[in-house]
Amino acid sequence: MCAIFGISGVDESSNLTYLGLHALQHRGQEGTGIVSTHGKEPFVHKERGLVGDVFTASVINSLQGHTAIGHNRYSTAGGNTSENLQPLIMKSSLGWVSIAHNGNLVNATELTKKLEQEGSIFQSTADTEVILHLMAKSKERELTRALIHALNQVIGAYSLLVLNHEYLIAVRDPQGFRPLVMGSHKGRPVFASESTAFDLIGATYEREIEPGEMVIVSLNNNFSVSSIRPLNSALKKRCVFEQVYFARPDSLVYGSTVYHTRKNLGKQLAEEQPALHAEMVIPVPDSGVYAAIGYSEFSNLPFEMGIIRSHYIGRTFIEPRQAIRDFGVKLKLNPVAEIIKGKSIVVVDDSLVRGTTSKKLIQHLRDAGAREVHLRISAPPTAHPCFYGIDTPTKKELLASSNSIEKIRVFVGADSLGYLSLEGLLKVASEKSGEGFCHACFSGDYPCLT
Amino acid sequence: MCAIFGISGVDESSNLTYLGLHALQHRGQEGTGIVSTHGKEPFVHKERGLVGDVFTASVINSLQGHTAIGHNRYSTAGGNTSENLQPLIMKSSLGWVSIAHNGNLVNATELTKKLEQEGSIFQSTADTEVILHLMAKSKERELTRALIHALNQVIGAYSLLVLNHEYLIAVRDPQGFRPLVMGSHKGRPVFASESTAFDLIGATYEREIEPGEMVIVSLNNNFSVSSIRPLNSALKKRCVFEQVYFARPDSLVYGSTVYHTRKNLGKQLAEEQPALHAEMVIPVPDSGVYAAIGYSEFSNLPFEMGIIRSHYIGRTFIEPRQAIRDFGVKLKLNPVAEIIKGKSIVVVDDSLVRGTTSKKLIQHLRDAGAREVHLRISAPPTAHPCFYGIDTPTKKELLASSNSIEKIRVFVGADSLGYLSLEGLLKVASEKSGEGFCHACFSGDYPCLT
Amino acid sequence: MCAIFGISGVDESSNLTYLGLHALQHRGQEGTGIVSTHGKEPFVHKERGLVGDVFTASVINSLQGHTAIGHNRYSTAGGNTSENLQPLIMKSSLGWVSIAHNGNLVNATELTKKLEQEGSIFQSTADTEVILHLMAKSKERELTRALIHALNQVIGAYSLLVLNHEYLIAVRDPQGFRPLVMGSHKGRPVFASESTAFDLIGATYEREIEPGEMVIVSLNNNFSVSSIRPLNSALKKRCVFEQVYFARPDSLVYGSTVYHTRKNLGKQLAEEQPALHAEMVIPVPDSGVYAAIGYSEFSNLPFEMGIIRSHYIGRTFIEPRQAIRDFGVKLKLNPVAEIIKGKSIVVVDDSLVRGTTSKKLIQHLRDAGAREVHLRISAPPTAHPCFYGIDTPTKKELLASSNSIEKIRVFVGADSLGYLSLEGLLKVASEKSGEGFCHACFSGDYPCLT
Amino acid sequence: MCAIFGISGVDESSNLTYLGLHALQHRGQEGTGIVSTHGKEPFVHKERGLVGDVFTASVINSLQGHTAIGHNRYSTAGGNTSENLQPLIMKSSLGWVSIAHNGNLVNATELTKKLEQEGSIFQSTADTEVILHLMAKSKERELTRALIHALNQVIGAYSLLVLNHEYLIAVRDPQGFRPLVMGSHKGRPVFASESTAFDLIGATYEREIEPGEMVIVSLNNNFSVSSIRPLNSALKKRCVFEQVYFARPDSLVYGSTVYHTRKNLGKQLAEEQPALHAEMVIPVPDSGVYAAIGYSEFSNLPFEMGIIRSHYIGRTFIEPRQAIRDFGVKLKLNPVAEIIKGKSIVVVDDSLVRGTTSKKLIQHLRDAGAREVHLRISAPPTAHPCFYGIDTPTKKELLASSNSIEKIRVFVGADSLGYLSLEGLLKVASEKSGEGFCHACFSGDYPCLT
Repeated sequence: MCAIFGISGVDESSNLTYLGLHALQHRGQEGTGIVSTHGKEPFVHKERGLVGDVFTASVINSLQGHTAIGHNRYSTAGGNTSENLQPLIMKSSLGWVSIAHNGNLVNATELTKKLEQEGSIFQSTADTEVILHLMAKSKERELTRALIHALNQVIGAYSLLVLNHEYLIAVRDPQGFRPLVMGSHKGRPVFASESTAFDLIGATYEREIEPGEMVIVSLNNNFSVSSIRPLNSALKKRCVFEQVYFARPDSLVYGSTVYHTRKNLGKQLAEEQPALHAEMVIPVPDSGVYAAIGYSEFSNLPFEMGIIRSHYIGRTFIEPRQAIRDFGVKLKLNPVAEIIKGKSIVVVDDSLVRGTTSKKLIQHLRDAGAREVHLRISAPPTAHPCFYGIDTPTKKELLASSNSIEKIRVFVGADSLGYLSLEGLLKVASEKSGEGFCHACFSGDYPCLT
Repeated sequence: MCAIFGISGVDESSNLTYLGLHALQHRGQEGTGIVSTHGKEPFVHKERGLVGDVFTASVINSLQGHTAIGHNRYSTAGGNTSENLQPLIMKSSLGWVSIAHNGNLVNATELTKKLEQEGSIFQSTADTEVILHLMAKSKERELTRALIHALNQVIGAYSLLVLNHEYLIAVRDPQGFRPLVMGSHKGRPVFASESTAFDLIGATYEREIEPGEMVIVSLNNNFSVSSIRPLNSALKKRCVFEQVYFARPDSLVYGSTVYHTRKNLGKQLAEEQPALHAEMVIPVPDSGVYAAIGYSEFSNLPFEMGIIRSHYIGRTFIEPRQAIRDFGVKLKLNPVAEIIKGKSIVVVDDSLVRGTTSKKLIQHLRDAGAREVHLRISAPPTAHPCFYGIDTPTKKELLASSNSIEKIRVFVGADSLGYLSLEGLLKVASEKSGEGFCHACFSGDYPCLT
Repeated sequence: MCAIFGISGVDESSNLTYLGLHALQHRGQEGTGIVSTHGKEPFVHKERGLVGDVFTASVINSLQGHTAIGHNRYSTAGGNTSENLQPLIMKSSLGWVSIAHNGNLVNATELTKKLEQEGSIFQSTADTEVILHLMAKSKERELTRALIHALNQVIGAYSLLVLNHEYLIAVRDPQGFRPLVMGSHKGRPVFASESTAFDLIGATYEREIEPGEMVIVSLNNNFSVSSIRPLNSALKKRCVFEQVYFARPDSLVYGSTVYHTRKNLGKQLAEEQPALHAEMVIPVPDSGVYAAIGYSEFSNLPFEMGIIRSHYIGRTFIEPRQAIRDFGVKLKLNPVAEIIKGKSIVVVDDSLVRGTTSKKLIQHLRDAGAREVHLRISAPPTAHPCFYGIDTPTKKELLASSNSIEKIRVFVGADSLGYLSLEGLLKVASEKSGEGFCHACFSGDYPCLT
Repeated sequence: MCAIFGISGVDESSNLTYLGLHALQHRGQEGTGIVSTHGKEPFVHKERGLVGDVFTASVINSLQGHTAIGHNRYSTAGGNTSENLQPLIMKSSLGWVSIAHNGNLVNATELTKKLEQEGSIFQSTADTEVILHLMAKSKERELTRALIHALNQVIGAYSLLVLNHEYLIAVRDPQGFRPLVMGSHKGRPVFASESTAFDLIGATYEREIEPGEMVIVSLNNNFSVSSIRPLNSALKKRCVFEQVYFARPDSLVYGSTVYHTRKNLGKQLAEEQPALHAEMVIPVPDSGVYAAIGYSEFSNLPFEMGIIRSHYIGRTFIEPRQAIRDFGVKLKLNPVAEIIKGKSIVVVDDSLVRGTTSKKLIQHLRDAGAREVHLRISAPPTAHPCFYGIDTPTKKELLASSNSIEKIRVFVGADSLGYLSLEGLLKVASEKSGEGFCHACFSGDYPCLT
C-alpha cells in the first residue's frame, strides 16, 4: 500500500503536498518523496523515513513551483538504496516526466521482459518504471497521449499522478482497485488517495476520480481541469480491504465514510456472530475500535476500552535475555485487569492474518483474569494473497489459507471465534458505495490475472 | 511530573529498569537515566530524549549489576546541559549516593540559601540536590540514617528511590503527594511510580508504599526488605490529579485502577451535568475516552469516536505561510464529518487548562457540521497552580483562575459547558482509595506551604 | 574526478573494496558505493558521504560475494537524490549489469538525444548511463561483446569497471585519459585508479591497464584473467594534471611515482623561474610540499614549513558578523611569523586556478612580516576548462584564461610570479612515463571533441 | 592536556571563543564547552565531540553576552555522562561561578577527602571541582578573594579562567607548568592556552601570563584589566613537553615560537646523534617534520617527505578478518617506495612512547625497500609518567621506563636509534624562553609532589 497526493496552481505547492503526505502517513512509512515544478524544470527530494523527518523547512523551500506530486512508500522490498522511492522521474524524448503510483501491475514481469528485449534498461524494481518505458517508447510526443498509449498496455491496479512541465494528470485504472479522490483548494485542483488529506490543508472534497477516468490539469492554461475516459471500460473492482482495514476512519473512500462502514461491519458481525453470555465488548485498539462500537450498539453489551495501547513504541527493543513471555505484544497492548477480571468478554478486531498477535493477546487477557474470551473479526478470513497492491503475507503464512475456523480458534486460544461473512461484508460496503468490489483476499476470486 | 523505577537482586537489573521506564514514558519525555550497581561502584547513563532512543543495547550492557534505579524527566526547565537529568549521583563522605525523585520540595529555596552560606555548591537547578547536600552534611555515616536526617528537614512532595553500594531505599513523603508502588519480581523487590511498569516486566503488584513509609533493601543481606516509619506522621494528601489526568489508565494508583476511576468520574459528570437534547457522546481522544464511556453509560447516549487522533505527530511542523486556521490542532485531532453532521453532541475531556485547544477543536467540530456542542469536563475548573510536582501553567495562564464558567463557555465557543463538582470528584476518588487527597489545583487549599 | 576500485576471487571482497576506496578518498568525497556479487545476484550500497562514514560493519557484511567494484564520486552536481552515485546498476536483457566510471564522455549529449528518440529513458544525469543504454540496445547477449559494442560508439575519457554475474571487466579508453592500474592480491586480480589502494590492502602493483586495453576476469572460470584490445587504437593522451595535482604522491601513475615527478617539477621550476634574492622556500601545504622540496634542492635555498595547515576543518563555519578578513583561508593556513619576519620568501604551490586563496594567503604572509613574496607555480597557467573528467571552473572563472601573468601577479599581490613552462612540464612528466599527454587545460589543445 | 580560551568586552564573545577553541582543537578532542554572560546570568553549552560539530549557529546565538570562557577536554576518563566537561559551573553564596582548567592538582585526593568530611558533595571526577568547593567554603564573599583563598590550598599545575557576573580572571600556578597567554582584540583582553588562537581571530599577542600572576578583568568597570601576584612565589617549572610535542608549531609558548624550537631540537639532535652513511632525512609526518628540517639542515642530508600521511582517518575501522599486518599504521602512514628503495634513511620523530607505531612503521619502510633505517628522536627517552596534566601512559607502558636504548632499538627494529640528550633539549628550549622547565617525564625529577 502507498499514498499519493498532488496539487496544482497554488503558492507553496510542496508545503501543501508535504502536509497531505503527512495526513496519509498511515499508508506508507518506509520512505517519501515530492517532485515539484513551476512549469519548467523539476525539483526533487526523496528519502527513506517518515514525512515529518524527511521534509525539513530547507528541503521544502528547495521544492519550488506551483504544482507538486508526492508519494509515501509502504513496502520494505528493494534494498538499501533509494531507487525505489517515488515519485519516479525520468528524462526521455518527452522531456522529464515524474510519476507517483499506488497499486500493482499484474503484467509487469511480462512487459519488462519484452522491453528488455528491445533494449530498455531498468533501474528500479518498481513495476511503475514499466509505465515510464512504455510512454518513452510510444511514438506520441505529448504527455497525455503517451500516457494513454502506455496504460492501454498494462493490466492491474493503478491510481497514478503524472507530472511534466505542461500537465498534472490523475488517472485510476478501469476497475478502480485503489482509491483516488479529487478536491478543491481555493479553486485549484487537488488529488489524494484519501479525503483526510484535504481536511488537513483546508481543501474541499469534491468527488472520486472514477475508475477509468483521467483528469488533466493544464499548467499553461491557468490550471484548467478536463476529464476524459480514454481507457477500456471494465467492471468496478474496488478494494474492499481499504474499507475494512487500510484507510483512515475519518476518510471518505468510494463515497462512503470509513468510520461509518466499520461501525456497520461491527453491527453486522454482532448479528451474524453473537456472543451469548458475554458481559462486555472490548476492541483491540486502535484497529478494532469502530467495529467494536457497532458490535456493542447492536448487541447492547457495554463497550469498554479494556486493552490500553502504548504509543511510545519504537522500531526495535532490547529484550532481557531471560525473555519475558510475549514481550512485544505486552509492550504495545496491556489489559486493564480490574475491568475484565472474572468476566466473559467479546474482543473485536478488524483482521486476523498470521494469528500470532491474537494468540499472545488472548493469553494476556486470561492472565489478567478474563473468564471467557470470544474473538470476533469484522471481516471474513484472509485466505488469499493480494496482487493489486496490498502487502499481504504469502499464502503459506496466512493462517486462514489452510486452517479451518475451529483450528484457528484452538491456535489463538479463544473460547469462540467468529468471522463476518463475505455476504455480510459486501452488504455493508455496498450500502453507500454501491456494488463492485474486489474481495480476492477473502474469496480468492481474482478479477484480472494474465 | 516524573517517573521513578527501581529493582534489586536480579540479573539484568538495568534492562528491567529500562523496560519499566518505557512503560512510564507518559510521565516524562525530556530525558532519562539509570544508575546501577553490583554493590561496589555505580554505573551511570543519563541523556536527553525518549527511553527507547537513549538506551541502546550497548548502553544497557554497560549498566552492570543486580540493582538499578531509573528516572524519566518531565520538565523542560534547566537549559541545554544534562546536569538536571536524574538519577543525581554524588560522592561524599557516605561514598557515592544516587537519588531519583518525583515531586517538588516547597522549602528548597530556603534550604539552598542556608546550605550555600555554609559553603555548599550547587550544580543543578533541581531541588533534589538539596537532599544530597543535607545527607552529606549530616553527622550520620550510614545511608539510612543520613537520609532520615535529611528528610526531616525538607517539606513538600517526594517519592524517592535512593541507592548506594549497600542499600536501595524507597520512601514517600508523610502526606503521600506522589504515588509509589511496590511489587515482586521472582521474589525480589521492585518499585515504580505506577503499577503498569510491573505489568510489562511480568512482576506482581503488592501494595503502595504508605505515606511516610521507608522501605529498605539490603544489598549485602540477600536483598532482604524491611520497612520503617521514621518521619513525622501527617494527614494524607494524595494528588487527585494523578487519577483524573496523569496516570496511565491501566495503572493501579492509591489502590484503585485509574480506568475505573475515570469511567466513574464520567458517570458522576453525566449525573451532575446532563446534556438534555444531545444525541451522542464523543471523547477528546485519548484523554477523554474513559470518562466519555462512563458518561455514555450513565446517560444512555451512544458513544462515538467522532474525533480521530493522529499518532504521527512530531515535535515541530513546517506551516505554510498562508497559515491554515488552527493548524496544529487539526493535524492531531480530525472530526469525522459524517458522524456529527447536524447532530447535537456532548464532547468529554478530562481537563480544560488554557482553553485554546478546546476553542479550536470546537470550531472544527462546527465546521464539520455539528449542530450543538456541549463540552463536559470530568474534573472541576483548574484554577490554581501546583507546587507539589505537576507542571501547571502560571495562575495567569489558567483560564479558570480569573473567569467565570460562562465566560469560559463563551471563549471556547460551546453551546453549554459543565464541570464536575469538587465533591463529585472526591466522592468518586475516595470510593476505593479512601479519603485524603490534595486538590489544591481545583480548590486552592494548599496542604503545606512554608 | 572520481575513484574506481575492483577485486575478484577473494574472501571479503567488499571489505577490501571499502579499504581501497578509503585509500582513494582524495579523488572524490561527495558519495561512494559498492556493488558485490558471488556470481548470482548483486548486493548494492550507495550513499552520500565519506567512505569511512558510509560503510559500517553491518553494511560491509551485507555486501556479500567474491567480487566487488566500488566508486567514489567527486562532483557536487546532480542534486539531493542519490541517483548519480555509482556504481550504476541496471537490469536488461543482459541480466543485471553494474558499472563504475572515472572520466567524461564528450559525445554523451548527442548519444542521449539519439537514445531518447528511440524510446530510452534516463534516470541519472551521469553520462555513464549512456554506456548502459548502448549495451542494452546492442544485439549482443554476452557482457564483453555488448560492452565493446557500446564503447565503439562513445568518445572521450573513460576508465571503467563493469560487473555482472559472469565477468569483472576493466577497460581504459584508447587515449588513456584517466589512469587505471592492475595488481595482484594473493594471486587474484585487483584494479584501482591509483596504486596507493594496493599498498593499503597489501596487494602487489603489476602494471597499468594500457590505453585501449580490456582486461576480463571470468568469475565462473576460477577468476582467470585475459586481455584483449577491441577498441580502435589512438594516440596516448594521458591527463598530465594527475601528475601535477590530483593523484596521491605515494601512487604510481603512468608507471611513475607521483612524488618523484612533483619534486622534479619543482627542480625544473627552480631552473626556469629562479627567485634571486630570496632567502627560503615555503610550500603551500600540503599541495606544494613536493615541488617546494625540489625547488629548495635545486636552488640551494633552505626549505621551511612556514605555513601551518590545520586538519580540523569541517565543511561550514560560523563566521562572526563583524567578519574577520579572509577568515576561511586563515582557519586552514596560518603563517609562522617568526620564520618569515623580514624575509624574502619563495612560496611554491602546484596550481593557481581562481587566485582568491593565493591572494588572501599572500596578504597573511605580509601581515606576518614577510618582506618579499615570490610566488612559484609548478605548472603552466590553467587557462582552459577540462572536458575529460576534471571539475575545473568555467573558462570565465579561470584567472589565467583572460589575464596576463603580470595582471595575475598584481591581483594576487606577489612581488614576482613564475609559472613552469609547458615544455618543462612535459619534459619532466615524460622522463619515466614516456610521451603522450593531454595538456588541454594548459594549452587548449583538446585531443578529441565532437 | 586541555585548552582554555576567554575574551571580554566584545560583541559576539561566544563566536570568538568558538573560533579560539577551534584553533586549539589539537589540545583536546573529547568534548568542549562555552560559558558566556552579559554580566548577569550565565549561558552554558557543553557537549562531547569536536568544536566544529558541537557549536552550531543556533547554539552560538544562544550563548549571549560580552564575555565568555571556553574549554576543550582531552582526557577520555570519566564515563559516558557530560559531568566532566568544562567549564564547570556552580551556584554558591558567591552566586554562580564558572571555571575552565588546564593542568592537574597533585593534592586533589587529599583535599577531596577533607571536604567530604566537612559535608561537601562531589559530582564530577575532575580535580577542578575542588577549587570550586574551596572557593565556596571560604569566608570571602568576593570572587577574587575567594579564588586566592582556594588557590593557596591547592598544589600542582593550573592555568585557569574563572568567570562570574562581575569578573573574568586568568591565573597561572606559581611554577607555570601549563602555558597561558594574553592578547588584545580591538583593545579588549583575550586569553588562550596558545597564541595561535589569537592569529585566527585577528587578535594581537601581548605576553605570557607570568607564573603566579592573576589578571583580573572587571566586567562592570569598562573591562579594565589589572594584575596582581597573590600566590607564593616558586621556581618556574614550565612543561618542556609543550615545546617538544604538544603545542601547535605556529604558536608562541613561553615567549618562543614552537616551530623554531623544534627545528633547533632537530639541529641539536643531528649534532648529538649523527647518522654517518645515511642518504636522506625523512620525518614521521606531521609530528617529526620540524625537527627533520633542522636535522637535514645541520647534517646536510636531503630532506624528503618519504612517508605520506592520510588525513581521512576516522575513529574506527572495519578490518578484514584475515587481518592485513599492521593495518592501522598503514592506513595513516604510507612510505613512498621509489624514494627510499635501496637507501639508508634517517627517520625523525618527536617522541617514542610505547614504540608500537614506530615498530610497524619501520617494518613498512623495510618492506618498501629501505636499506637502513636510523631512527632519531628529538627528545630524551620518555621514562616517567606526568602528574601535571599530560595524559601519558602508565610507567609500565612507557617503553623507556624499563628498557635500555639498545633494547628499544631491537624492539622497534631500527639499524640505529638516537635520542636527544636532556642537556641538549634544555639548552635549545632555554635559548629564547630562559631557564626553568619541568622535565619530569624525561628525568623523573618531579617538582612538587605531596
